[in-house]
Amino acid sequence: MEVTVAVDCMGGDHGVRVTVPAAVNVVRRDPALSVILVGKSDAVEQELARLGVSPDGRLTVAHAGEVVGMDEAPAAALRGKKDSSMRVAANLVEEGLASACVSAGNTGALMAISRFVLKMLAGIDRPAIAAILPTLKGHTYVLDLGANVDCAPEHLLQFGIMCSELVSSVEGKERPTIGLLNIGAEDIKGNDLVKRAAELMRASGLNFHGYVEGDDIYKGSTDVVVCDGFVGNVALKTSEGLAQMLATYLREEFNRGWLSRLAGLVALPVINAFKRRVDHRRYNGATLLGLRGIVIKSHGSADIFAFEHAIDRAVAEARGGVLAHIAERMAAMHKSAA
Amino acid sequence: MEVTVAVDCMGGDHGVRVTVPAAVNVVRRDPALSVILVGKSDAVEQELARLGVSPDGRLTVAHAGEVVGMDEAPAAALRGKKDSSMRVAANLVEEGLASACVSAGNTGALMAISRFVLKMLAGIDRPAIAAILPTLKGHTYVLDLGANVDCAPEHLLQFGIMCSELVSSVEGKERPTIGLLNIGAEDIKGNDLVKRAAELMRASGLNFHGYVEGDDIYKGSTDVVVCDGFVGNVALKTSEGLAQMLATYLREEFNRGWLSRLAGLVALPVINAFKRRVDHRRYNGATLLGLRGIVIKSHGSADIFAFEHAIDRAVAEARGGVLAHIAERMAAMHKSAA
Repeated sequence: MEVTVAVDCMGGDHGVRVTVPAAVNVVRRDPALSVILVGKSDAVEQELARLGVSPDGRLTVAHAGEVVGMDEAPAAALRGKKDSSMRVAANLVEEGLASACVSAGNTGALMAISRFVLKMLAGIDRPAIAAILPTLKGHTYVLDLGANVDCAPEHLLQFGIMCSELVSSVEGKERPTIGLLNIGAEDIKGNDLVKRAAELMRASGLNFHGYVEGDDIYKGSTDVVVCDGFVGNVALKTSEGLAQMLATYLREEFNRGWLSRLAGLVALPVINAFKRRVDHRRYNGATLLGLRGIVIKSHGSADIFAFEHAIDRAVAEARGGVLAHIAERMAAMHKSAA
Repeated sequence: MEVTVAVDCMGGDHGVRVTVPAAVNVVRRDPALSVILVGKSDAVEQELARLGVSPDGRLTVAHAGEVVGMDEAPAAALRGKKDSSMRVAANLVEEGLASACVSAGNTGALMAISRFVLKMLAGIDRPAIAAILPTLKGHTYVLDLGANVDCAPEHLLQFGIMCSELVSSVEGKERPTIGLLNIGAEDIKGNDLVKRAAELMRASGLNFHGYVEGDDIYKGSTDVVVCDGFVGNVALKTSEGLAQMLATYLREEFNRGWLSRLAGLVALPVINAFKRRVDHRRYNGATLLGLRGIVIKSHGSADIFAFEHAIDRAVAEARGGVLAHIAERMAAMHKSAA
């Protein structure tokens, strides 16, 4: 299926040096994909020239005169920079010229701009950020990861519905299992928010698995884990911190004296296989769910390999028809409730 | 300093087979320590006999006719089992016959029984569970880990004060740094709870570092990380899940064919050094803070080595005079507020 993705080339820690080569690689791999490179046209074209690539029908450049800073306040970026690369990329989606957009820029600004330009889907109050994490069984979707710090039970229900449709459209799973993150599996456990959200989920027609705990994320107990943005963000950042600590310790131990270094050399292929398996770059690309358009947020520090995965994710969601599925589901629920 | 610790020998997944040998080991190591083994005296004495150890002045048995089940409702354990090993151990602390008690039993029941028997320290509304986690710099105390699912800002302040005193008494750090767990380091980030708690902490005289994020726990950015029990429990369990997943992956990669197994053999000393370094058993023993007595909760699945660490923790807190320090601090704050 032919798909066009708008890529914000200026966002992220590395800008065009990462975004443009990643886009070129993805377009080369996928003959039915077109990418619109959005950003300062001189910078984008210079990078294309450096790569020895000329724009063509599947790789075009759309000029945007401004760039949203990584630490810029979302409101300032929204009001003050109407020609930012992020804004122009979102506009391309809104105008139907692209099926999805991808940015490694400032999350808050991307959220504010996407919400303003694309608007929310009917029946959805707030956008949520959904990411994929590796598990013992494969991978699991977790949301929200920080867009919503104070949630009502209805919001958690909406997150569950949206992500259920996301998983079924992209992965072809018919009725993904939905877990609600809590601090115990028993019914009496948890705060008011999760107890009320559980009631809503039970009555919703979702394939609701019930409560899950933090360790269930990596056990892969359910296809989706729903939580409020504060809790989800802490879980994600804590995981990042732990993974970094363990990687540092492992490196230090393999560098403790020549015998350990020798052992490290012998074990290198195994360690590398392990690293490939848990490589977080393969999971790069979080989905901003709930908008009338597909918006993918790449990690700001993404390298070319990681950013390619964010573009791949945008393509998969566009081809899976995620938005139509969510809209249909919301309409059906609205009808049955009326 | 002479210290007596009451050990609930019946709690945990393994009961006397773990608790009694651990107590024997710790008493052998520490000539100024006495342990009261609390539980069904025939079971405890049988285990002592199996180990070839006779009770003496430093190792005594206190009979308790009942056992709290690992899944028993806290209220039922509190009301229905007045002669449980957990209850008798707490009574020994209340009566001043022991300076601390340790149990690997049901957390909710231990909390309910401790609170009922020992009561709260003046000025503290709720007990909190504090645990130690390894970090890149050493270790960090994190609380609350699940005792309080809905907290007011005042509770988070109290957690910070209590844990500050805990760290200074046990580790000899004069003014431990306190971080408040949030989803961003900027002042505008976070929910109402953390914003109001931050204000209280800033005005409290604590060595308040400000907001920290999930990854700061393992970076060791502060000596203490404060959060509500829901968030803390999710962070802890998520960490457990991730660590287990990574360990499984590593094991699988080292077992993929004879070449990998050979590499694993060569790397074994390094892998073992790494494992020792991140061995969670060395961090076993969470503190129930806020009570008029020292109560240490061991992981239910603790083995002998892990349970020894929980007893060590009880001894360290008793010798550090944690309770007096917290009480003094609360009294001083109350005075300055009045």
